[in-house]
Amino acid sequence: MRRPEVKRREENEIEFSRIVAFSDGVFAIAITLLVLSLNVDDLSRDDLWQGIWDLRENFIAYGISFAVIGRFWLVHHRFFGEVTAFDGRLLGLNMLYLAFIVLIPFSSQLLGDFGGETPSLVVYAVNLIACILVGLWMFLYAQGAWLTSARAESRRESVVRAAYIAAVFLVSIPLAFLAPNFAPLLWLALFYDPGDRYAADRG
Amino acid sequence: MRRPEVKRREENEIEFSRIVAFSDGVFAIAITLLVLSLNVDDLSRDDLWQGIWDLRENFIAYGISFAVIGRFWLVHHRFFGEVTAFDGRLLGLNMLYLAFIVLIPFSSQLLGDFGGETPSLVVYAVNLIACILVGLWMFLYAQGAWLTSARAESRRESVVRAAYIAAVFLVSIPLAFLAPNFAPLLWLALFYDPGDRYAADRG
Amino acid sequence: MRRPEVKRREENEIEFSRIVAFSDGVFAIAITLLVLSLNVDDLSRDDLWQGIWDLRENFIAYGISFAVIGRFWLVHHRFFGEVTAFDGRLLGLNMLYLAFIVLIPFSSQLLGDFGGETPSLVVYAVNLIACILVGLWMFLYAQGAWLTSARAESRRESVVRAAYIAAVFLVSIPLAFLAPNFAPLLWLALFYDPGDRYAADRG
Amino acid sequence: MRRPEVKRREENEIEFSRIVAFSDGVFAIAITLLVLSLNVDDLSRDDLWQGIWDLRENFIAYGISFAVIGRFWLVHHRFFGEVTAFDGRLLGLNMLYLAFIVLIPFSSQLLGDFGGETPSLVVYAVNLIACILVGLWMFLYAQGAWLTSARAESRRESVVRAAYIAAVFLVSIPLAFLAPNFAPLLWLALFYDPGDRYAADRG
Repeated sequence: MRRPEVKRREENEIEFSRIVAFSDGVFAIAITLLVLSLNVDDLSRDDLWQGIWDLRENFIAYGISFAVIGRFWLVHHRFFGEVTAFDGRLLGLNMLYLAFIVLIPFSSQLLGDFGGETPSLVVYAVNLIACILVGLWMFLYAQGAWLTSARAESRRESVVRAAYIAAVFLVSIPLAFLAPNFAPLLWLALFYDPGDRYAADRG
Repeated sequence: MRRPEVKRREENEIEFSRIVAFSDGVFAIAITLLVLSLNVDDLSRDDLWQGIWDLRENFIAYGISFAVIGRFWLVHHRFFGEVTAFDGRLLGLNMLYLAFIVLIPFSSQLLGDFGGETPSLVVYAVNLIACILVGLWMFLYAQGAWLTSARAESRRESVVRAAYIAAVFLVSIPLAFLAPNFAPLLWLALFYDPGDRYAADRG
Repeated sequence: MRRPEVKRREENEIEFSRIVAFSDGVFAIAITLLVLSLNVDDLSRDDLWQGIWDLRENFIAYGISFAVIGRFWLVHHRFFGEVTAFDGRLLGLNMLYLAFIVLIPFSSQLLGDFGGETPSLVVYAVNLIACILVGLWMFLYAQGAWLTSARAESRRESVVRAAYIAAVFLVSIPLAFLAPNFAPLLWLALFYDPGDRYAADRG
Repeated sequence: MRRPEVKRREENEIEFSRIVAFSDGVFAIAITLLVLSLNVDDLSRDDLWQGIWDLRENFIAYGISFAVIGRFWLVHHRFFGEVTAFDGRLLGLNMLYLAFIVLIPFSSQLLGDFGGETPSLVVYAVNLIACILVGLWMFLYAQGAWLTSARAESRRESVVRAAYIAAVFLVSIPLAFLAPNFAPLLWLALFYDPGDRYAADRG
């Protein structure tokens, strides 16, 4: 086996920006496809207000998933802003990461159509955990292979933050079996940011 | 709480242009998804002319919404052209703004499928008002936090213009209850631009 | 009325490239949405070969429309390559042009689902004629307002070419009523390029 | 006939990068549309776990096709990184190539919905063979017309690699008739890379 070729970012700026633009495109399309889960076909002219009201869980799922993909995009954005070199494996991990991001519109529609059902909550949580863990893997690989300028503190911060988010979703899985209606409430815990403490210490 | 980090645009040109490109991508996809509301599945070979004629309200909704999203894009485009610095809150507001833009294909399909019905008119008007108000919020925040080079006159102009457009849609909501068929006619008032007077005074 | 503001391209390169990137995005999405007209839902496991064979007209429509949108993109691409300044009206015409481009996936699905039927042929031809005429309008406006570096010869060439293509589609409309199965054959005349003669004379 | 005009990349960087950006956009949209093949509409609240389990072949097809399009994108990416000049024919071949890439979401949904059926396996294999052969054609044309800086070794390597991949899919077609369930297993042979040997010799 040959060692995979490492390319410096500053010498391959065009190639690098193409990778970033491709990822951005995938994020932008995935976030926009969320609107297709708001299905107008089942509505009837006779009771339109009722039909729109029945879509309320779909609107909630739309809002949550828009925020989730938007957040993932910001993290991805910041991560690639600090990348200084790339190799084939980083591109492969990025592709795997995007494969889970693109699944979110599916999981989101499941959540919207079957809100309060255990399976849809579990699928949604598993999907997001997969995004977080592959994202963490990509980050740790980039650090270990000296492909990023992110500092050691930022490493600790990222691991803590990813572990926290993954833990919240992980805990929400058994809760989805016991009390499906309360599992999404647990996700409110995501608004607390444990990585902030480390950042504050540093600042 | 720490003060959110403000980044100068000229020092972060790549990051800034990625944000703009992401927003542009979302606009481009949302405007193109409008075509999916022109549904061919219900047509039958026997009376194809009739079937196409029955889509006339969908064509009108398509035309209106294409113009609306195109107009919003131009405004967004001009706004970000004057942005000189950005922070996390501006990005968050931009994401919220995009979430309402992406809803337009849904509201538009509702309008096309159930034209002349009160609920679809109300949903459409509320969606556009939300776009306008969040856009105004983003603009005022950027001005207040010294993130834009837009002059004070342009502030007054923007508020007048946004208030006027929002008012037209707001007035169309009660009209949608009283006389659903006339509410869209009110939207013709949008072709008058009250911000122009101020601009003309200045020029 | 104030004269609309004209912006030089070299002084507004970022704004200009955003407009071009937005248009490219719309083209790329419209051309990719063509695949959604190849509908798998009506197929059954029992007679899958037959089902795929029944999609043959959809495949033909897909191929034609992919080539058509691709060709329009190349023309748009070349036109904006020669644009040296832009104003609000050029942007407005570009938006109108894109609105007809985005309609092509709809007309194409109509053509694929109801091939050999007069209405679908007429809708398809009208859609393409609209694209060509708005494109020509945009080109002539840009030349008249000194917004492009295209030479006078290129003007004559463009008019001849656009008129020829529009004429072919225009003739195909009555033919669609008389002999629907032969109308698409007329489109083969598009492979002859009358603008070439002028270009050759010049070269 | 005039000889088609050849443009040097360094003198037409903006035009060139627009072509690449357009291609990237098409790839990004095609890869994201794969999620639409995971159809939620047929699921019912009563037996949601069963319904999700019934989608397993769709998930497998999603994973395979995401990897396939991602791989094609990387190859396309590398190819255009070495292109130094372009003409109308290269653009035409690129468009033909993209037309087959955009078909993959269709073939993938066929594969997911009718896994283990001969026709869907054949359609999928034919689609990928078409991508590979048109890609090879584009590569050889670019080399023959001196449009790329790729070396002669890389030519041999590319032909061997493309021939190998096309051969695997070609062999899988008769296998799809004889033993439909085993044909996809043959695709595992794709993980062996015959072009690597040549690359290693060179390195």
